[in-house]
Amino acid sequence: MSASLLEQLVESLRVLPGVGQKTAQRMAYQLLEREREGGKRLAHVLGEALDRIGHCVRCRDFTETELCPICANSSRDRQLLCAVESPADRLAIEQATGFRGLYFILQGRLSPLDGIGPRELGLDALAALLAQGEVRELIVASSPTVEGEATAHYLAQLARQHGVQASRLTHGVPLGGELEYVDRGTLNHAFGTRSVMPL
Amino acid sequence: MSASLLEQLVESLRVLPGVGQKTAQRMAYQLLEREREGGKRLAHVLGEALDRIGHCVRCRDFTETELCPICANSSRDRQLLCAVESPADRLAIEQATGFRGLYFILQGRLSPLDGIGPRELGLDALAALLAQGEVRELIVASSPTVEGEATAHYLAQLARQHGVQASRLTHGVPLGGELEYVDRGTLNHAFGTRSVMPL
Repeated sequence: MSASLLEQLVESLRVLPGVGQKTAQRMAYQLLEREREGGKRLAHVLGEALDRIGHCVRCRDFTETELCPICANSSRDRQLLCAVESPADRLAIEQATGFRGLYFILQGRLSPLDGIGPRELGLDALAALLAQGEVRELIVASSPTVEGEATAHYLAQLARQHGVQASRLTHGVPLGGELEYVDRGTLNHAFGTRSVMPL
Repeated sequence: MSASLLEQLVESLRVLPGVGQKTAQRMAYQLLEREREGGKRLAHVLGEALDRIGHCVRCRDFTETELCPICANSSRDRQLLCAVESPADRLAIEQATGFRGLYFILQGRLSPLDGIGPRELGLDALAALLAQGEVRELIVASSPTVEGEATAHYLAQLARQHGVQASRLTHGVPLGGELEYVDRGTLNHAFGTRSVMPL
């Protein structure tokens, strides 16, 4: 006997991150019971999005056009380029800071064991971008993990080769948290790099 | 400026239960980055399911056919009818017990303040079913909440009117848990209804 449409729906929903059997069931029932309109819209938009969203030819971010809205925006500062690991990181920086430069989305981080090298991160495209001579500063905003750090060092070298200044985000104690919950590595780093307070 | 397809996708994903802005973003990126095939399948199956899944004419469960597979199964015991609040409850009983009778899905519980009365729960259809004289026992498996209890009492009365025996699930301490974590009401009930252990 083939699976019923309901079983197929539950199975298909499990493709979503963090969604297991139970959650998928609850989602399927919720859509069927109370959200038929929203569900139909989701089915339509999801199909459209997967068909039409590709990568920006310049920064590799997701976009439905050839150039993403940020790259296409002529009022952004072309001298500043911020390299991030993912579109989610790009969005976080865009929402949190007043950064007015452009981005380059690596879509990952250097991880030779997983077969992710400079080519997979599109670093030849990044090198070509730096070679154009317009960029003055490359802000490396990779994650503070082992692979993120390796990526950061590689990017800094690449910037140096093209005579571009590389910079990175400051590490330290997050604002608004309790000191006792900050992890040891961060606390040690913040302690060691403490700054003099003005009198 | 109208919302980009990516923004529309994030917004549409929020129709899923328990999915807020951040989770929807993560889902959209995951689908675009790594699950395009699964995502396309989800879009297709979801559209199909919402178009074609309706209610079983006999038990009100979700099904794409006129009668659901359980109601259509001639080997199930038509003398036993189990009333549950939702398809999820029906599934839980089906998976956990060896019950071989039929079900009736209320799709809710009596809640006059929310405008949910006997008509919304399809109790006229249930009464018609009981009036056919085939059902011998109505197992009321509503939730042990105030509304669930009210629903249970209403169903018991309905059964009595049709000369059908009504029964309900036993309340007590769940198997396999620690006694200290059982809520007071349950513990008090289990204590009061304790049974003699055979020598």
